[in-house]
Amino acid sequence: MKIDGKHYRTLWPDEAAGIVHVIDQTRLPHRFEICVLRGCAEAESAIADMIVRGAPLIGVTGAYGMALAMGEDASDLGLQGAYARLLATRPTASNLKWALDRQFAVLRAAAPAERRARAWAEAAAIAEEDVAMCEAIGAHGAAVIGDLAARKGGARLNILTHCNAGWLATVDWGTALAPIYKAVRAGVDLHVWVDETRPRNQGASLTAFELAGEGVPFSVIADNAGGHLMQHGLVDLCIVGSDRTTRTGDVCNKIGTYLKALAAHDNRVPFYAALPSSTLDWSMRDGVREIPIEERSAREVTHIAGRASDGATVEVQLTPDAANARNFAFDVTPARYVTGIITERGVHGASEAALVAAFPAESAR
Amino acid sequence: MKIDGKHYRTLWPDEAAGIVHVIDQTRLPHRFEICVLRGCAEAESAIADMIVRGAPLIGVTGAYGMALAMGEDASDLGLQGAYARLLATRPTASNLKWALDRQFAVLRAAAPAERRARAWAEAAAIAEEDVAMCEAIGAHGAAVIGDLAARKGGARLNILTHCNAGWLATVDWGTALAPIYKAVRAGVDLHVWVDETRPRNQGASLTAFELAGEGVPFSVIADNAGGHLMQHGLVDLCIVGSDRTTRTGDVCNKIGTYLKALAAHDNRVPFYAALPSSTLDWSMRDGVREIPIEERSAREVTHIAGRASDGATVEVQLTPDAANARNFAFDVTPARYVTGIITERGVHGASEAALVAAFPAESAR
Repeated sequence: MKIDGKHYRTLWPDEAAGIVHVIDQTRLPHRFEICVLRGCAEAESAIADMIVRGAPLIGVTGAYGMALAMGEDASDLGLQGAYARLLATRPTASNLKWALDRQFAVLRAAAPAERRARAWAEAAAIAEEDVAMCEAIGAHGAAVIGDLAARKGGARLNILTHCNAGWLATVDWGTALAPIYKAVRAGVDLHVWVDETRPRNQGASLTAFELAGEGVPFSVIADNAGGHLMQHGLVDLCIVGSDRTTRTGDVCNKIGTYLKALAAHDNRVPFYAALPSSTLDWSMRDGVREIPIEERSAREVTHIAGRASDGATVEVQLTPDAANARNFAFDVTPARYVTGIITERGVHGASEAALVAAFPAESAR
Repeated sequence: MKIDGKHYRTLWPDEAAGIVHVIDQTRLPHRFEICVLRGCAEAESAIADMIVRGAPLIGVTGAYGMALAMGEDASDLGLQGAYARLLATRPTASNLKWALDRQFAVLRAAAPAERRARAWAEAAAIAEEDVAMCEAIGAHGAAVIGDLAARKGGARLNILTHCNAGWLATVDWGTALAPIYKAVRAGVDLHVWVDETRPRNQGASLTAFELAGEGVPFSVIADNAGGHLMQHGLVDLCIVGSDRTTRTGDVCNKIGTYLKALAAHDNRVPFYAALPSSTLDWSMRDGVREIPIEERSAREVTHIAGRASDGATVEVQLTPDAANARNFAFDVTPARYVTGIITERGVHGASEAALVAAFPAESAR
């Protein structure tokens, strides 16, 4: 998608040089910087430090991390070690494991001498599939948006989104934002309410940055505001991403998503999760009980970074010195509050029956 | 209540000098500064700029603003002008109007030469009544907390609160926090989840500052986190304040309150609003439709101030330059999501029948 009119992906490899370029998302929206990953350890810290973030992009970066590792140590021990270290970087995202498992299966079957080339090829395949999946999610979701726009008689449609499930969270297009980009290109008049998404503010920084780059009208709001907007008819549709979705349709996404889903339900606003099928976890039935929720550093709550008036990035403390804080990164929205799940295969009900029908082979594994 | 072991009120007058001292709440939690109001215009800007905030304290400050005005111009025109200017400072808080109306009625009945002395006396009476009301709210609410603690067999109770309805929002004791202070003094073991309360972060700054001063255990959380905590049994009770409550029990409070009430309802967590009866608006039945919601500057969303590592207070920009933002300051929680309303007279159901029964004279006016 576009930044200052120029097309970018979030990640682009240079196999000959043995490096991977990524956009440093910790610098956005104030600075656009490219970060170069030269080895597996740099891929690990890029994921752990959220230089790359978003479930699909984490998966692709993990796959490239394995490729970088195979340039360092292509032995069985090297393979196993890289897999374990990359898997440990983020506990909640389901398709990090999916991507690493896929790489591991390919590489284990290959002789050590072949592993480096195989790993780069497999990572590239995963990346291209991600782009294709996101574009398909965009097409299916744009149909949902188009229907709502038609029912509104062409009046501007207001869509609320939480966190960043845009192209910056994937290789290109995004998940929750892909339908918006496709709908805008199809001529739908819409405006996006962007939850700032505390504590890391991915909405206020990344989603706002993306939408500005693509020229989509938007307003940033505090995470507290969505319920009020829905009570007053100012939201026609919610679309969010998902880091993990159970076979029953429970949606794990950035902390606070559940609160918006409750408000959408209370005000009869359709609430959709848009996700690649790689984030479906067929082994789980009860998202609230079973999905492990990452707890991150309290400092993300007590401190925040932004751009000072002199242009410098400054971190400021928000709480008194004595303050304790807790920082749960995700929550789970039970399927009963989800109108539909949009994947690369279409729009499905948030139920085991609908998801299994759409993914018969995957769900039976 | 206590700051660094010393007792303070939020406001203390000096009638002889013709000035009013207030704690500058825009400086908290990083700096404790006293602000001196020397005239009505300074009282107006203290309210508008949120040097004082919280519905009860705004009311008391308004009453003292009238007293300051009577020292400047005690004519009928001066009285009417001061009333109108003070009323215009904040549109949502119901008991600003209540306090100003009360002062206005007293002063209109007095000769201009008597108005200054009468105004100081009436403001002092309003302030003392506020303290007594808050203490009574604390006693009634502490009984609710005590019952829940007994049912938990003495295990630590977790209470979630939103924004700051503590002593800093009143003259002393607070509304939503008064029950907590009373319960702690009665020996209840409890811990408070403090919603940071974007965009102005009154929770992370003021509530955290208050609870630290009183030695009450607490953790600051992002506003997004409460639903997750409730899903996992980590919240036993929610208590919030209210800026205006309809005769039917609809509760208008800081933006985001409604979202927490929805989560409490979904997880069978009791949800109480604690408020002085001066915030009850007997003229309204439908809070969502009738209560005007203040929209504040977008800059409160796009920028945030905090303490930099060198100790200076620095404001930083959170969004890209191109970002539009909207900033609705309050929302309305429909009565059906409110377990009970705690006032100085007791604990009432959130219904017209219960509120009218508790306030027969007031509701009939």
